[in-house]
Amino acid sequence: MNKIILNNPLDMHLHLRDYDMLKLVAPLSSKQFSGALIMPNLVPPITTKDMLKDYKKRIQLSTSNDNFEAYMTIFFQLYDKKFLEDIKDDITAIKLYPAGITTNSDGGISSFDIETLRATLEAMSDLNIPLSIHGESDGFVMDRENEFLPIYEKLAVNFPNLKIIMEHITTKEACDMVLKYDNLFATITLHHLLITLDDLAGGLLKPHLFCKPIAKRYEDKKALLFLATSGNDKVMFGSDSAPHPTSKKESCGCAAGIFTAPIALQYLVDIFIKDSFDENQIKTATKNLQKFLSYNAVKIYGIKPTKKQITIVKKPFKIPANYTYGDIVVTPMDANEQINWSIL
Amino acid sequence: MNKIILNNPLDMHLHLRDYDMLKLVAPLSSKQFSGALIMPNLVPPITTKDMLKDYKKRIQLSTSNDNFEAYMTIFFQLYDKKFLEDIKDDITAIKLYPAGITTNSDGGISSFDIETLRATLEAMSDLNIPLSIHGESDGFVMDRENEFLPIYEKLAVNFPNLKIIMEHITTKEACDMVLKYDNLFATITLHHLLITLDDLAGGLLKPHLFCKPIAKRYEDKKALLFLATSGNDKVMFGSDSAPHPTSKKESCGCAAGIFTAPIALQYLVDIFIKDSFDENQIKTATKNLQKFLSYNAVKIYGIKPTKKQITIVKKPFKIPANYTYGDIVVTPMDANEQINWSIL
Repeated sequence: MNKIILNNPLDMHLHLRDYDMLKLVAPLSSKQFSGALIMPNLVPPITTKDMLKDYKKRIQLSTSNDNFEAYMTIFFQLYDKKFLEDIKDDITAIKLYPAGITTNSDGGISSFDIETLRATLEAMSDLNIPLSIHGESDGFVMDRENEFLPIYEKLAVNFPNLKIIMEHITTKEACDMVLKYDNLFATITLHHLLITLDDLAGGLLKPHLFCKPIAKRYEDKKALLFLATSGNDKVMFGSDSAPHPTSKKESCGCAAGIFTAPIALQYLVDIFIKDSFDENQIKTATKNLQKFLSYNAVKIYGIKPTKKQITIVKKPFKIPANYTYGDIVVTPMDANEQINWSIL
Repeated sequence: MNKIILNNPLDMHLHLRDYDMLKLVAPLSSKQFSGALIMPNLVPPITTKDMLKDYKKRIQLSTSNDNFEAYMTIFFQLYDKKFLEDIKDDITAIKLYPAGITTNSDGGISSFDIETLRATLEAMSDLNIPLSIHGESDGFVMDRENEFLPIYEKLAVNFPNLKIIMEHITTKEACDMVLKYDNLFATITLHHLLITLDDLAGGLLKPHLFCKPIAKRYEDKKALLFLATSGNDKVMFGSDSAPHPTSKKESCGCAAGIFTAPIALQYLVDIFIKDSFDENQIKTATKNLQKFLSYNAVKIYGIKPTKKQITIVKKPFKIPANYTYGDIVVTPMDANEQINWSIL
């Protein structure tokens, strides 16, 4: 099989940033994806309907050449029910950041006391607004995600009708946790299916592979690959593609974030198909990819994706050294390397 | 106590590189240290008497303003006894690198089969030439040192009269291992007493804190601090100060190595003294620092250090942003930050 057709691919965790960076990166996603869940961690973060609508308009302007839906989110705060009722139809999820844990998360949550969160989370539960979480503690960088797992568990138990999405999971233990509660779901990035800490820091140090949560061990990557490719209903693709200017990545304090939007589909086909050696296996792999890349998200979020077919062909694609817009230069993951598959 | 006098400080693991870089960094060490053990991993590595003598001459030229002894090493190979007898008086140790494990280690050892190594190691043992080892496996970056510990153990048991130095140890388990065999000793760097993986990659990514072996966990740092500061006879200071041009550190493939030579003594005094709250404690701390920084190495290596007294005073020292020589620019660890102690 030298051609794979993908229906309505969705990127359920995407950073589009703003202004010139938005103009640079948004079309690279909208060309390939049917839609994406847009993260709200701008400076300042998106917390009001006006900010949300303005941001959505700017995204629409940048993606106007394509049939593409920006599924919007707001930055979690202790919102009251009235506010949530009013904004409900304009958002697909609310994104919760622990304070200070990643790029532009300073205004995030510093206590996970259930009673403090109860009113907001019950309102979200009643209104069927999913809660999307960057789940990391402030502990040692390799332990942060696993240290956060009891909080996922506490939230899942206390708010059984709230859909909770464990964003960009990176560990074997997180893969186990998502299967433990009916109301837990997860996104998995492309880069966590490809790299471990060894790729970042085992040889030379590679700033373009630096992200939060940091890439973990081989056994973690193996668990993520199994969960993503096995056709499980509870996991969705979320690239967490997070562009920073190249000058900010290759500096003495490199910001966390890997830019993968323009290479995601090509790599995903490669990952899902590569162990297949007959037509039947390719059929199963493609079906599982379709679930991971679209069907699961449609069910979990209850969205109706814009129709889009993307054809991926077995033809080498050389990843560009950079993507630019005006003065902005962004380096993609694996710049100058070659992928086995291209977009037709 | 606002003044600490250090006698004959020794840096028992130092990279001086060559040519202009040598001219830049060597005087920064020779001003502060009585002597240093010079690593042989140039390109090509130092493996003959002629190369050794030429390199030593270049070092002497660069340090001629100071009373400073360069204790030379050669790069481990399967040398025969005749070669070792001939070179014995010109070297202080032989440095063994597993192949490909760090900067310029390509010609290193790929098998630790005892019978393969026996002739060389028995000759070294007979001639009382210490074996200095970069002890890392080729496994997952956080596990490499601990995976190498059984090899240290095998060598210690098979060559009981060979002095084996575990270079730049970074883990709690390595701290335990050095105490287990009479013929095992260790160096500890400054940076592994100061940082963990969190400092490298827990916030922004900091290329100037990237080194091999990579900085580990808090419990590892705690064990290293205890071993270094407790007055134990088996550990020596070895900075592993390893300069690379700033442009090579702040790039998309950053070389491993932290440049600490010009800030080592000031930081070490701070580390050893900081928990002292009376004169007696300061006296003990200074005595232990003196062992770590000179006396232990003198005993372990049987060297006679050149006499040098360095006075460290309690006065803030702002670490320079860079050190330069001609076109070469090198950024020290903690550039632009302030240390509590200065060299008088």
